[in-house]
Amino acid sequence: MNDLPRGYKVGTAAAGFKKAGRDDLGVILSEVPAVCAGMFTTNAFKAAPVLVCQETLDLGGPVRAVMANSGLANACTGDEGMANCRRSREMVADVLGVFHGQVLPMSTGVIGAQFDMAAWERAVPQIGASLGSKGAEDFVRAFMTTDAFPKLLSRDVRLSGGTIRLTGMAKGAGMICPNMATMLSVVLTDAAVDGRAWQDMFHRAVSLTFNRVSVDGDTSTNDTILGLANGASGVSAVRQEDVILLQQALTEVLGTLAHMLVMDGEGATKVMHIAVTGAKNDADAEKVARTVGHSQLVKTAMYGRDANWGRIVAAVGRSGASFRPQDVRVSLCGVELFRNGQPLAGDFDEQLREPLEKQDIYMEISLGGGDGCYTLQASDLSHDYVSLNADYRS
Amino acid sequence: MNDLPRGYKVGTAAAGFKKAGRDDLGVILSEVPAVCAGMFTTNAFKAAPVLVCQETLDLGGPVRAVMANSGLANACTGDEGMANCRRSREMVADVLGVFHGQVLPMSTGVIGAQFDMAAWERAVPQIGASLGSKGAEDFVRAFMTTDAFPKLLSRDVRLSGGTIRLTGMAKGAGMICPNMATMLSVVLTDAAVDGRAWQDMFHRAVSLTFNRVSVDGDTSTNDTILGLANGASGVSAVRQEDVILLQQALTEVLGTLAHMLVMDGEGATKVMHIAVTGAKNDADAEKVARTVGHSQLVKTAMYGRDANWGRIVAAVGRSGASFRPQDVRVSLCGVELFRNGQPLAGDFDEQLREPLEKQDIYMEISLGGGDGCYTLQASDLSHDYVSLNADYRS
Repeated sequence: MNDLPRGYKVGTAAAGFKKAGRDDLGVILSEVPAVCAGMFTTNAFKAAPVLVCQETLDLGGPVRAVMANSGLANACTGDEGMANCRRSREMVADVLGVFHGQVLPMSTGVIGAQFDMAAWERAVPQIGASLGSKGAEDFVRAFMTTDAFPKLLSRDVRLSGGTIRLTGMAKGAGMICPNMATMLSVVLTDAAVDGRAWQDMFHRAVSLTFNRVSVDGDTSTNDTILGLANGASGVSAVRQEDVILLQQALTEVLGTLAHMLVMDGEGATKVMHIAVTGAKNDADAEKVARTVGHSQLVKTAMYGRDANWGRIVAAVGRSGASFRPQDVRVSLCGVELFRNGQPLAGDFDEQLREPLEKQDIYMEISLGGGDGCYTLQASDLSHDYVSLNADYRS
Repeated sequence: MNDLPRGYKVGTAAAGFKKAGRDDLGVILSEVPAVCAGMFTTNAFKAAPVLVCQETLDLGGPVRAVMANSGLANACTGDEGMANCRRSREMVADVLGVFHGQVLPMSTGVIGAQFDMAAWERAVPQIGASLGSKGAEDFVRAFMTTDAFPKLLSRDVRLSGGTIRLTGMAKGAGMICPNMATMLSVVLTDAAVDGRAWQDMFHRAVSLTFNRVSVDGDTSTNDTILGLANGASGVSAVRQEDVILLQQALTEVLGTLAHMLVMDGEGATKVMHIAVTGAKNDADAEKVARTVGHSQLVKTAMYGRDANWGRIVAAVGRSGASFRPQDVRVSLCGVELFRNGQPLAGDFDEQLREPLEKQDIYMEISLGGGDGCYTLQASDLSHDYVSLNADYRS
């Protein structure tokens, strides 16, 4: 199930950007032009590959390839970084035999350091030689950094005209020493879709999944997610019912990848599933979910398996959302703890001892005042997080 | 220098709110009515004593006493908590022989648990018995929780009519298991001031000091700072030049207390002094300072003595402030690292090795586009922070 959809080929290379002897450059070629959608970091310091992807997608044409390297992020590298990004893209385009304006670059790794273009010269021919002999997992391994496991999955979807495949690949949600890394993801399908419809579907799926996970609240300079649809299956998703099926499958694939990212957040031992309802509007619900999910005190309590509901209530209270305190209700692992401005009766330490040992922790927060809602998945905060992020260079 | 200004007396008691045998209730009596100013948590879940203080100050009259307990926060305790707060205040007022509406309560400790009123019955007579035999440090020790050291200082100020004293006392900036604690602070002076002028002075001083420190970004339900001026010195601060001197001294006293709070933040090993200039306005500068100061990645890098400027730049980039990326400049410990969208040349690891060993770490961030500025003091994020907040109840 982890093979590629039809019409895609992968090649990889060991460029030695940071360490010798491991594949750190991966390329996906679509044998036919593909429609493409992308979403990028909101950080004001966008890495060179993010800027190049954005200008490419702004032109609105079809694309032929995605290239991704680990080891160097090509971020905060100024004009030289932009020139190196374009040059490396030309080299890859040449070996693939496609127009360079149809290749989308992604990078992750150390920021502030420039590419060694000689390493690119040596590596790119390996891409040509290995093209078609590699699979989705090889591509994922080429852009992994501190990820504990490769994140990919495929799903076949039966549409009215036949079966299409979706393959999603992603790397690392934690930001990583010595500077930081990045969330990179690519989703491929061989369905035939209208470009504009694909972009709508893709944005909807990302906003419901990747935009609702948090490891440490930090947004990297390189975050990129790309979706390619090349139509190579000959099966179209144009009829309303097929679009709905494809939307659903796409959201599920991205949702599973997003969950994997949180599970593999740096040092994470838990995934908190924070569901906020009863807010004045969705924006208020999001404020509450993010304040709780980013709270160091909530995160450390969950790491410590501590039924410390006061920290959740306090985070709700400082979120800036509008609500009446006496209407707020909080449940942890299905046990209602707080209502009418005070704790309910019960030995919560005892009741929650076992549920808090589990990996997935469910928090339900109702503000009791409207139909705004939001869900967020967030990791806990552990000793290992501090070690990974403080001690890596020592 | 740590004695009280004229006209104030302290009494303490061991009520056993959480642990037996230590003073956990302190009272300050002003022998004459004092003008009072207060600032409180912005958390929507305000503890009972915060609500009682606010309604008292809203009436605008003079006050006679401050009472503070540790062990129980009386937060998230609903109507019963409000009734208990009022009842305990009446008991203290009776033993002091003042009107209960002139006593300001503060609490810190476990949230969600109700007071044992029998403990108050036993404790309050001790207040009467010890009144006048205790000092500022005894009061501080009664409301300390996990603080590593008592935080207090006094300063004598020569005004045109004579010398007045300011005494500042504070406790714990980190929020503390098993639920959370609180920043509580009281500043006393024997200067004679106009009530409205004192409030202005006080708000200005707090906004420049206590509102510019951060340990973990969490705002407790109980944060309270009170300022009393009783005029017992007979020296007035009404003339413009005296007001300026008093304002300056008040800001210095609160600034020193605020610095102590960050130094003693839970598990803190560093104080980051983050200065942002060149912003479109002060609000934008504050956004940048808080995003950098709350970034887990910046905090762990400082804990690890890591010259990891990319994390600072990335935090600036996601702050939401408006600026042109190429105009941003970043210095760490006086060494300029980043300019024109790229790192400057230099072996920063080597240059910053020694400066990053120091306790105080200076970060200067210029956005290059206006005269908005802000400064923030924030602690780092250490293994001990995680231990204190995750393992306390195990």
